[in-house]
Amino acid sequence: MAVGRPQPLPSLPALAGFRLATAACGIKNGQSTRDDLLLVAMDPETTVAGVFTRNRVHAAPVALCRQRLTGGRARGVVVNSGNANAVTGAQGMADAVEMTRLAAQALALPEEAIFVASTGVIGVPLPMARIRAGIAPLGQKMAPGGWLQAAQAIMTTDTFPKLAVRTGVLDGRTVTMIGMAKGAGMIRPDMATMLAFLFTDANVAPAALQTLLERGVESGFNAITVDGDQSTNDTALLFASGQAGNGRLEDPDAPGAAPLAAMVTEICQALAQEIVRDGEGARKFVTVTVAGAATPAEAKQAAMAIANSPLVKTALAGSDPNWGRILAAVGAAGVAVDPDRLSLWLGEVLVVEQGRLAAGYAEEHGAAVMAGEEIAIRVELALGTASRTVWTCDLTHDYITINADYRT
Amino acid sequence: MAVGRPQPLPSLPALAGFRLATAACGIKNGQSTRDDLLLVAMDPETTVAGVFTRNRVHAAPVALCRQRLTGGRARGVVVNSGNANAVTGAQGMADAVEMTRLAAQALALPEEAIFVASTGVIGVPLPMARIRAGIAPLGQKMAPGGWLQAAQAIMTTDTFPKLAVRTGVLDGRTVTMIGMAKGAGMIRPDMATMLAFLFTDANVAPAALQTLLERGVESGFNAITVDGDQSTNDTALLFASGQAGNGRLEDPDAPGAAPLAAMVTEICQALAQEIVRDGEGARKFVTVTVAGAATPAEAKQAAMAIANSPLVKTALAGSDPNWGRILAAVGAAGVAVDPDRLSLWLGEVLVVEQGRLAAGYAEEHGAAVMAGEEIAIRVELALGTASRTVWTCDLTHDYITINADYRT
Repeated sequence: MAVGRPQPLPSLPALAGFRLATAACGIKNGQSTRDDLLLVAMDPETTVAGVFTRNRVHAAPVALCRQRLTGGRARGVVVNSGNANAVTGAQGMADAVEMTRLAAQALALPEEAIFVASTGVIGVPLPMARIRAGIAPLGQKMAPGGWLQAAQAIMTTDTFPKLAVRTGVLDGRTVTMIGMAKGAGMIRPDMATMLAFLFTDANVAPAALQTLLERGVESGFNAITVDGDQSTNDTALLFASGQAGNGRLEDPDAPGAAPLAAMVTEICQALAQEIVRDGEGARKFVTVTVAGAATPAEAKQAAMAIANSPLVKTALAGSDPNWGRILAAVGAAGVAVDPDRLSLWLGEVLVVEQGRLAAGYAEEHGAAVMAGEEIAIRVELALGTASRTVWTCDLTHDYITINADYRT
Repeated sequence: MAVGRPQPLPSLPALAGFRLATAACGIKNGQSTRDDLLLVAMDPETTVAGVFTRNRVHAAPVALCRQRLTGGRARGVVVNSGNANAVTGAQGMADAVEMTRLAAQALALPEEAIFVASTGVIGVPLPMARIRAGIAPLGQKMAPGGWLQAAQAIMTTDTFPKLAVRTGVLDGRTVTMIGMAKGAGMIRPDMATMLAFLFTDANVAPAALQTLLERGVESGFNAITVDGDQSTNDTALLFASGQAGNGRLEDPDAPGAAPLAAMVTEICQALAQEIVRDGEGARKFVTVTVAGAATPAEAKQAAMAIANSPLVKTALAGSDPNWGRILAAVGAAGVAVDPDRLSLWLGEVLVVEQGRLAAGYAEEHGAAVMAGEEIAIRVELALGTASRTVWTCDLTHDYITINADYRT
């Protein structure tokens, strides 16, 4: 059960400079015949940016990608689902390196130019024999397009593939960006991980690409929460092939960079919101805005405190307009709050006005808003001008069922 | 459903310097006949210490207690359940002041010497007419003892009264301390609040009493979590009548103070653990220890990260030995962690040894531990010497049911 995808999958073009192939290796249990490995090959001038989990317990592929990111160049990425290659010690790092070597051999490229990501069970060594057998033939299968199969191959417990596309004009050239993502943070951490891969034909210098990705991740993936946990494997990579033919973008803050910045942010937000809609057990999609905060950091901290509160999330599940829990979450967020200035809206309904129950508010007004499947919560702190919006889902019986009973 | 009280209620003596009475005011709905108001009167030399919620959205009685604490003296406390007098604006403060005036009139004492606490529904003005009628006759009913009735009068959703008693020798005199508590943090915030009241016949200067209470709260009430939320009304007050006849204790760090310090800490821990055992929906009592941390603060932060993780708590509910979730919670805690040094025990079973699955560990070993009702999780960071233990409960379907469906 999940809120579900709000709209049909976008139509996705081939993207100059990228070729894809997928394979069914049976990584999880040796038996499944669904695709669980993705290989992407990239043209020689491709630049790369990456953002990774801040979890101190991170998986081998995360460590390897961090090393290889220093060059700012990439020729490919190999991704498997079904096994996270996390908490696997020195063998895990050797396996991650071998995955890139196998991909490099299949593509006749240097292994140092290949990136790698894994998602799935923690603490189990990768089944390298099955991965070797799966990657070897892919060199002959690489082709433009195939984004839907790619997005499906990286899924674990996702109920639908997550894809987004945007186009824009950069230096007089039309550029395209395609993004795919899987999994919802630590929603199901033994089948863990948020992975996101963005691909564009724009020509962008590595440092500029890194800045744009970091900003997009902050306003997208870092603005969602399902249960507040953070995976060992979270990875976002952005590859730019340069085939669109624009002059190389060097300054992420130049006026001409704005269309590309908007594309990165919009794709990160679109994919992030799909992850929330696919949250385990989620039945409601919730937009939380905190405005009037003293600083942007405090606006985010307060919004996340509301979005992560189990009491707010269970109230959402029960369609209970329990505004006291929302105010209590704000008060406990560790940010500047003046209780006598706080106002609170559920949807368009003003519930609390400057610290007091709003005149004319009645429980049934709030209940009508909370009965919906798409719910907006807005808090005005009236202390400054900073605001922030984050997205979350409700906390339901299905979440408990999925997470309590998954392995046993 | 809760884990339940582990042992019979202690036998509780009268305590020199304190007289108690309770009343049934019908505060919540005007109808209930169960006691919902407690009045305690204290001898003239009584000193007082207090610790309050850090939630910026705090209730009127919290604000009033903070003001009156500056004198360090008390003659009484009045407590109601059924209504939190929170988010009630200026009327809320006027009502809190009036409650102390009514108590003062009943006891023929100055109102500034009376403390006040409230717990219950947020955002609804106190029914002052019923409270006036309830308090007025109590002056004639004050009597030593009656601790059980007192602990019952302050309950809201608690399923059992929480009481603890300790004795010790201070300056050659036997001193006694009795504590009572209710509610479990923000477990059910519209019937909110952790309230704790400690009473002793020891003779202690206000500043020393304050230090002892703060330490006790830190190692007791601040070491438990049910859902990570913090109430608008959390209050802990410690009253010392001085009737035991010891020489006034001025230095909380003097060797002679150790017995009293131990009593405060033991009572805070005992009451805190009973609150966890009475957690909504709780079926397991969980002890989380993080050892080998770089600093005490980091030990606590890591232990709380484990205890607050919804994924760990749902795994506990499902008796799932999902050690990957525990390591991921530690890694995301924001403290120094070296993944290759981490070790993890479930009960006496070594699961992860220095970053790798322990030799000989099998899933059924962990599953046997997790099947119990009392579960210990221990993580060794191997980075330093600091350690910390906190207590929590599992996250169950009953929690969702209670909190999603409570008001609607």
